[in-house]
Amino acid sequence: MSIIKVERKVLEKNDELAARNREIFRQNGLFAVNMVSSPGSGKTSILERTLEYLNGTLRVTVIEGDVQTDLDAQRVAKFGVPVVQIITNGGCHLDANLIQNALGNVELKGVQLLVIENVGNLVCPANYDLGEDMKIVVASTTEGDDKPLKYPGMFRNASALIINKIDLIPYVNCNLEELKNNALRINPALKVFETSCTTKQGIAEWCKWLEEQAAGNGGKK
Amino acid sequence: MSIIKVERKVLEKNDELAARNREIFRQNGLFAVNMVSSPGSGKTSILERTLEYLNGTLRVTVIEGDVQTDLDAQRVAKFGVPVVQIITNGGCHLDANLIQNALGNVELKGVQLLVIENVGNLVCPANYDLGEDMKIVVASTTEGDDKPLKYPGMFRNASALIINKIDLIPYVNCNLEELKNNALRINPALKVFETSCTTKQGIAEWCKWLEEQAAGNGGKK
Repeated sequence: MSIIKVERKVLEKNDELAARNREIFRQNGLFAVNMVSSPGSGKTSILERTLEYLNGTLRVTVIEGDVQTDLDAQRVAKFGVPVVQIITNGGCHLDANLIQNALGNVELKGVQLLVIENVGNLVCPANYDLGEDMKIVVASTTEGDDKPLKYPGMFRNASALIINKIDLIPYVNCNLEELKNNALRINPALKVFETSCTTKQGIAEWCKWLEEQAAGNGGKK
Repeated sequence: MSIIKVERKVLEKNDELAARNREIFRQNGLFAVNMVSSPGSGKTSILERTLEYLNGTLRVTVIEGDVQTDLDAQRVAKFGVPVVQIITNGGCHLDANLIQNALGNVELKGVQLLVIENVGNLVCPANYDLGEDMKIVVASTTEGDDKPLKYPGMFRNASALIINKIDLIPYVNCNLEELKNNALRINPALKVFETSCTTKQGIAEWCKWLEEQAAGNGGKK
């Protein structure tokens, strides 16, 4: 019982810090997204394709979260955007305090879009508000079509779903309609995109929507 | 600081309960494996192919762990083996206490192999001993070749690595040698298998090894 109380306190404390982060984002007029998914579903690849597509039209800053290594930060830095790496050292999710610390290491003035790439984990990051405007959940076709039913928390708390690796549909046991229906049953408000980072299918549609969100939610400069 | 103390206490308590589970497994002469991986890497599919291959030559019982739904238990039950489903209701890993409760719902007498399929999560389950003889980590080729470096805890604590979806290598951005080298750099003692549940490549080799382990570690009847 005491453990549950501690967990509740941890989440309450996190929500307070998240509210402070949200205030900082608002003051700087930036739009913040928290990208969440299983390991290997393609968050970093989508971010690479997104930065390539935006090609400097939006001023973007990235916070990378990883259990170990800065491999993803290295990939993102190649696109010439500021990147801060958070290594959780075994921790299974980012929290608002880690983001607050990271914000001390970036220049937010003039930034229009802040992308936070969370630790690859379809369970724990669902419960931790970082102060973001929205969570974007990525699910790859190779993971099968039942994941929204098995990990509902993440799909319930997200605003958009990117179904990635759409090019692999012919080779994997995944019914695309079933995957979409399962996700929409959990969260009917989900905006759904279908992408492939290999063929670039769907990347433009996703990027245009993201630009609109950023413009409509404080990202105007 | 107090949170870290609570976490340590939780892990200590878990280790005590795991030791009790281990004693129960020993008394019943059964071999227990804890299957861990990201969501959608193919744990349940490998279990299906394994039960098909064993075809009753080993007496198997399965404990399924899921955040929500009993979809996996339904799939496994079709092979005529006893299955207990644990639904964690948002919990990100199985722990020794959940297993102890599940053991109250199965007949262990005569069982030679107990397969515990953990929640799909490449981070948290690494730290929770369930009393198993070994952890088996599954990594699918579609997740990329960098996962052992990014999630080292799981690969360090496992005895075997099953590289699944080997048939998709031509279509994905994954260097098989690099994946193996990355895993063996973290844990040189890892026994590595390459499987496909679609073509059944590698399934026989994995099953024969599993039978040997069960026979050599108490699974003799």
